[in-house]
Amino acid sequence: MRRAIVLLSGGMDSAVTLAIALSRGYEAYPIIFDYGQKNIKEMTMARKLCEYYSLTPKIIKADLTQIGGSALTDDNIPVPHEKTSDEIPITYVPARNTIFLSYALAYAEVISAESIFIGVNARDYSGYPDCRPEYYEAFRKLAALATKKGVENIKKASEEGITTPLILTPLIYMSKEEIVTVGATLGVPFELTWSCYESGDKACGKCESCLLRKKGFREANIEDPIPYRE
Amino acid sequence: MRRAIVLLSGGMDSAVTLAIALSRGYEAYPIIFDYGQKNIKEMTMARKLCEYYSLTPKIIKADLTQIGGSALTDDNIPVPHEKTSDEIPITYVPARNTIFLSYALAYAEVISAESIFIGVNARDYSGYPDCRPEYYEAFRKLAALATKKGVENIKKASEEGITTPLILTPLIYMSKEEIVTVGATLGVPFELTWSCYESGDKACGKCESCLLRKKGFREANIEDPIPYRE
Repeated sequence: MRRAIVLLSGGMDSAVTLAIALSRGYEAYPIIFDYGQKNIKEMTMARKLCEYYSLTPKIIKADLTQIGGSALTDDNIPVPHEKTSDEIPITYVPARNTIFLSYALAYAEVISAESIFIGVNARDYSGYPDCRPEYYEAFRKLAALATKKGVENIKKASEEGITTPLILTPLIYMSKEEIVTVGATLGVPFELTWSCYESGDKACGKCESCLLRKKGFREANIEDPIPYRE
Repeated sequence: MRRAIVLLSGGMDSAVTLAIALSRGYEAYPIIFDYGQKNIKEMTMARKLCEYYSLTPKIIKADLTQIGGSALTDDNIPVPHEKTSDEIPITYVPARNTIFLSYALAYAEVISAESIFIGVNARDYSGYPDCRPEYYEAFRKLAALATKKGVENIKKASEEGITTPLILTPLIYMSKEEIVTVGATLGVPFELTWSCYESGDKACGKCESCLLRKKGFREANIEDPIPYRE
């Protein structure tokens, strides 16, 4: 069976991405990053999602509080409660997806995974640089060169443009509405996902991540099963 | 003063790279990775080198034993005592340089470093895929897109091909002889570097890394100040 690594954040996008990988017949190997995120509810939900699908996640510790520079990892930078401007927000974590994909690339090499799924989205998103299609095009080229397989690829068939492992971003051009619709079709348990930048029993309903999620469910005309404070 | 991150391994190549960065007038920010390497002498030497240059290294924990797949990180895979074949050796650590550069990229963003120096070499080397020039070309393109700066770069001057931070590999086309010669010219304290895959008071003198180092000093006609068992 073809193996795929799936990066799980606890949010709904990565949950839908996992469902997509499974629907394509992959044997899924979820990775959950314990990166020192303040919001530990994300990891709890990601683990619950794995339980739901009877998958054992690989928990990789990659402590980004060593680096800092983001409201999500640095205790000295508060998480904004509302969207403030059109700039890249302070919730951006420097080079986070590059670091996560690098670990995934290493793990893919060790377990001979054919693909790496990451649920990034460049339509209804926060403008993070490492969510854009051109970034993933660049990472695909890097991945094709970075590993043993890369060397073999080049030796054997550089002209064929083989790029293993494949870096797959099935949601990248979807709207949040489409993501919700696809997830509902595939039976994703949205009650086991969490998008709010804060932890707690109820999502705040006001942060940028909550706003994007609520918009997706509203436009898809599907009820969001998680509770909101407002 | 322009800031540069310099990746330090404890080996002579990264020591020469640090000296080159300093010689170019950069304010150097060394990073030492505590990645679960069996050979702890590397880290000791890298710290000593920083002391020599009165620099405070950033120690980043990035535990690659979680990933495994290499003789350098996996307790179940012994380090080979001699070079065995022309294949990529088992000392190759899956995606190590990609992971290290990703952290460096994140840190560069946080401290506004202009450049990242890495002392890789693609002439007298072990054939690791992530030491090859084409890999670095791909990483440069990735780095130009991966961060906030990347987005600003593209907005402001995509046509000018700005790629900050610069990923600099000054040794990549040098022979080991040249590396030793350049290092000696710049006054690198080679006694504070360690290349052997094993720890101990004396280098083994037989592993691939020792052989490459000894060849460099011999051809440069410079005495290697570290002791060898043979």
